[in-house]
This record gives sequence, structure tokens and C-alpha cells, in this order.
Amino acid sequence: MLDEPLTSTPKADGFFMPAEFSPQRRVFMMWPERSDSWRDNAVHAQRAYADVANAICTFEEVVMFASREQHERCRSILDSRIRMEELIYGDAWARDIGPTFLINGKGELRAVDWQFNAWGGEFDGIYQDWADDDKAARRFCEIAGAPRYRTEDFVLEGGSIHTDGEGTVLTTEMCLLSPGRNPRLTKAQIETKLCEYLGCEKVLWLKNGIDPDETNGHVDDVACFVAPGEVACLYTDDPKDAFYAVAQENYKALCGMRDAKGRTLKVHKICGTKRPVLLPPDYQIQLREGTKLRSAGELCIASYLNFLIVNNAVIVPQYEDENDTLALAQIAKIFHGRRVVGIKTKEIVYGGGNIHCITQQQPRI
Amino acid sequence: MLDEPLTSTPKADGFFMPAEFSPQRRVFMMWPERSDSWRDNAVHAQRAYADVANAICTFEEVVMFASREQHERCRSILDSRIRMEELIYGDAWARDIGPTFLINGKGELRAVDWQFNAWGGEFDGIYQDWADDDKAARRFCEIAGAPRYRTEDFVLEGGSIHTDGEGTVLTTEMCLLSPGRNPRLTKAQIETKLCEYLGCEKVLWLKNGIDPDETNGHVDDVACFVAPGEVACLYTDDPKDAFYAVAQENYKALCGMRDAKGRTLKVHKICGTKRPVLLPPDYQIQLREGTKLRSAGELCIASYLNFLIVNNAVIVPQYEDENDTLALAQIAKIFHGRRVVGIKTKEIVYGGGNIHCITQQQPRI
Repeated sequence: MLDEPLTSTPKADGFFMPAEFSPQRRVFMMWPERSDSWRDNAVHAQRAYADVANAICTFEEVVMFASREQHERCRSILDSRIRMEELIYGDAWARDIGPTFLINGKGELRAVDWQFNAWGGEFDGIYQDWADDDKAARRFCEIAGAPRYRTEDFVLEGGSIHTDGEGTVLTTEMCLLSPGRNPRLTKAQIETKLCEYLGCEKVLWLKNGIDPDETNGHVDDVACFVAPGEVACLYTDDPKDAFYAVAQENYKALCGMRDAKGRTLKVHKICGTKRPVLLPPDYQIQLREGTKLRSAGELCIASYLNFLIVNNAVIVPQYEDENDTLALAQIAKIFHGRRVVGIKTKEIVYGGGNIHCITQQQPRI
Repeated sequence: MLDEPLTSTPKADGFFMPAEFSPQRRVFMMWPERSDSWRDNAVHAQRAYADVANAICTFEEVVMFASREQHERCRSILDSRIRMEELIYGDAWARDIGPTFLINGKGELRAVDWQFNAWGGEFDGIYQDWADDDKAARRFCEIAGAPRYRTEDFVLEGGSIHTDGEGTVLTTEMCLLSPGRNPRLTKAQIETKLCEYLGCEKVLWLKNGIDPDETNGHVDDVACFVAPGEVACLYTDDPKDAFYAVAQENYKALCGMRDAKGRTLKVHKICGTKRPVLLPPDYQIQLREGTKLRSAGELCIASYLNFLIVNNAVIVPQYEDENDTLALAQIAKIFHGRRVVGIKTKEIVYGGGNIHCITQQQPRI
């Protein structure tokens, strides 16, 4: 039943992507392993992934995918309450590789299985062997019991969109208009796809993200919905900050935007790190043909915005930076009533993402 | 944290076992494998276990334990929504080997990890290698996130008790007073243990079950609570039925009993099979030292009472017997509002139990 994708579109069927701040059923994650993405055969990243998973499972169920080879190591450092499932995949980014879950007004669950090409395909993808990744979303859907739509002609990663659950999508031109995704579609055609597959009415376009190289500027490093009519936005007034120009531009743009319901957005400022986070001097990953190499000293995309909202809590990256506490306080103030849990995730950011990138929530119906 | 058992008792801490008809979080099961319990290397039993698990997972989450060797086969016939966990254990009876879950009034979960000796230990146990089984309940507790009590000096199986969640325990003398369990305790001392560990006030004693040999007469083949103040009871007025005497005796006894709240019990009659279910002529299991042998032609303990109540449904054994439909109708009438799902489980009953014996519910908090 779940093997064959649905042939209509979510919007036609009355389905939409609820906001991340809506009630959730569980969170999916994928265990990191490949030595051309993660230094020291991923052992440090694995520790950080486990810290994230173990923190989430206090608030809701977690399903962790891992290869057969990694099963024992993974099981040994994960909380016993976490469900493990075997899966074959390329790299460990459940946000971008997993499906986007949808609900309707009748308590039913479905999902969009987006075409995936490793953040840019042959144009500027991070690795070239993405065939297993592109199939992986099916397994998420099976476990969730969610019939799926499949966009054979439309490439998208979950990290490039946020929704408010009330008709609005937030995204960036840098990513969605980049030549590695859907070069044959116009901006208007892409808007139509987003609205059809996310069950939305209006797309809010930011120009740029802060990660032009790897994700081509995913929105989930710079802004997100925190409530209907409210967004959080990366902000700095330090002109020497590498992310200053983008942060300023996005903040101003968001302040002037109206959502699908016609509301002017309330924009909350979230600080960046005080000092740039760089790949450490001894940083090394294994060189592999077709995989983008990262080297010691490079700037990391260390944003506090890459948090995950879960039931009753927000799981927030910490970088051992002077601004860690300030970021937690700012986020706590926005999400009064939710616990704010900081997790040290430098080793995840070294691999090119953070807590939001490595998780994918399934809404509660 | 969960490694060390709690040192007080559930009753002292305000915990009790809720009724099976209360809301549930999930059901645990254990995959059958051993060839001295299950004919043809358990392949037929596995099919029936999978049918039960797949039926339950429509209504609530299922966690299936299996050995590493069985992982792939099990995964291949289980519904994708079912969580699998590796475990080392003797045989596949989650009701008797798993813990009994408890709740309190504050939304907290705990469990009793009963001492287990394979239904009678050296006196008349079914097999002699029960050490792994006795440790297995810990893993259930870890997955549930339930701190556990441990009765080092008290043997009990989950199938030998039912509770109404309002202070009453239902059990049989045949089992709880049998010399293979707690021979050094008096009936009064056993009552105290039951009340302390199940958070109850009153024990209702039936004399006999219908399975004197294997479980020493577990109550879950003959009677259970279906609502506060209401029980279902195996009943037949056919004197030639092998279970006639016990059924008549239990029915009369229950009609005269009052529960912990002082209510006279309302007793619902449930039929047995029209014809006895016997081990088929070609039935064979592997002979193994220390394991009780079963042979072709023996009477099976085929009771419709061995159903499992889950959220919104009741999962009921079917024996390809003339009375299958009548039993479903009787159960549907008692549980109006719940779906009644019949599953063919002869191959499970050949191994000595049925749907209730192979499942263990974790209450919702």
C-alpha cells in the first residue's frame, strides 16, 4: 500500500505541513558514520548525535536509523527508550534526506518524499552517491504509517523550508533558485510547487542564507517560525561578523513581510556566536572522490537558529562560545513555557549542519 | 538510574497496576524461536505471532524483542511500524517474562520485575534454563523508561493475575499456591505480596485454572476484568467438555464475589470451543533435556478468554472452531465501542499459550 506513491498533490487532498511548534509524535534521526564527512571515523560526531537524541527522548519518541555495522556502537550509547532501525544511506541528515510529514483536518498523516540530489547534484552536490539517500524517505514513511507523495521532477531538502502551519512557507532564493536544484523551473513555478506540496498559500522569500557552499543557504540557519505570525531571525550588529550582511538584510526583510493570513510578522532577534567557529587546526577528514573536502581553519556555519522545537522543549546548539548563554536566554524568552536544552554540537557543525539538520519531526495527529 | 531496583514497595510509593482496559502506551512481545517449544523451527508460530503484532499495531505501538539471529526474518514479516529490539531470552511469553507496569496518580510509570522460574522451577518448570528470562524484564523497563521494583523472594508470572485498577486482584489458588512458586509463603503472606506489589486492597481467589500442567492454572485462560465491577468468565454447560467442572465452579464463585469497592461482580459468560483443540497427528517438537515434551493428540488449552484488550480494540484467538464466531460476538457485546479482531492462533496454543500470554501492555500516563 505504501510502496506506490500517491498520484495527486497534498493541497488537492487537503493536506499541509504543520508548524514545527505544533504537537509531535516522534523525531527521526540518522546515525553518522562516513569518514569523508566526519573526522576520526565519526566517533566525536556520534557522541554529539547521541547527546541530541538522548535529550529529545526525554520529551518524545526518537527513531534512530543506523547501518547494520554501526548497530551495536549506536545502541551502546543511545538511551534505551530510543528505537533503532536499520537503513542504508549516504550521510546522516534526516532533515534533508527524510520526508516532510503532512496532516489534514481529519487526523490523517501523509508525507512528501522529495527528490534528493545531495544539495546540488552534479552542479555542486556535496557527494555524488546519493541514490540510497533518495530512497531513504520511504522507510521513514513506512515506520510512520504515512502514505507518500513523491516529487520526481522537483528537488528539495527539508532544511530549505519552514512553515507556520497556517498557509505560509519561509525559504531562501539562494537555495531554491540555485542551479543545482530545479534549474528548469521559474521562481513562480517553484512557488506553485511549494504551495501544492506543503499545502500553503504564500511563500516568503529571503534572499540569502549564511551557508552558500554546502546547503546553498538553507533557511534553517537564519530564520524560523516560532508561533503564528512570529519568526526568530539571526541578528548581529557587528559589521565584522561574517554573517553581518545576510543577518541585517534578512532581519529588515522579515520586518516588512506579511504572512498568508495578512499579519505583519513579529521578528525576534537571535544572536550569533561571539567568535567565528572554525574547523580546528588538527581537523582532517578522509579524501574521497566526488566528496567535497573540508580543511582546517575553514569557517563553520555555527548558528543558534539551527535548533529543534519538540514537545515542551527546544533543543539548542551550543558552541562553547561567549554567546551560548545569551542565545539560550533569547530562545527561552520566545518560547516561554518550553524548556530550553543546550547541547554541545561543535562536532556536528564541523560536518556541515546542526540539530535541526539531523532531525525530522513527525507531527502528532 | 534504572539499573538498581527501587527498595520500597509500589503500595508504599502510591503505585498500582491499572486495568488492562485502561489507556495503553504500547504492547511488548517476544519473538518465538526455540525448536523444543515450537514445531518446525517455529515458522508457523512466527506467522501467528506476526499476525497478532500486526493487528495490534493498527491500534497502538508494538515493540517486538527478537534474537540477533532472527532479526531479519522477523523484520521481513512484521509491519514496518513495529519497533524491534534485540534481546537474549528463553521462550517467547512476554506476559509471564516481562514486568508488570504500574502507574500512580501523578502520571509516573514504574514496574515490578517479578522473579521468574519458568512456571515452577525445579519442581515442575517447563524448562530449566530460565536465567536469561529472569533478566529480560529489565530491558522492558529500560525501553519504557520505568524504574523497577524487584521481588527477589517472590515468584510470579503476569498471566496468573488480573486487576481492575481499583484495588482488586483476581488469581487462582492452583497457580499461586503451587509448590513450584513460593512454597514457603502462606496464602495470607501471598495476599500481602500481591497487594503490596500491585497496589491493591483485596485478592479474589478462584480455585482452579484449566491448564494445570504448564502454567499451573493461570487465571488468564479462565476469567478477566472487562470493566470496573465486571468480569468475563469461561463458561460451558456441556458436561462432556474437558473444562466443564472448572468453568462451572469459577462462574459460580465469581457470581458470589465482591470487589475491593464492595461491588457484587457482574459476570459475563464466554463460550469455549465446540470441539477440543488437540495437538495434530503430525505434531513434533525437538526433544531437549530439561524441557517438557508435548506430543501429538494432547489436549490444548484453547480458551477465547486469552484475548488482549488494547486501545479501541480486543484481539481475540480463533481456533477454526464452530464457536469462533459466537465467542467474537460475546466479546463484542461486552466491549461495545471496541473493535473485536479475531486472529487464528492455533500454532500459538500448540506452544502452550495464546494472545494474552505473548503480550504485555505498558499503560499510558
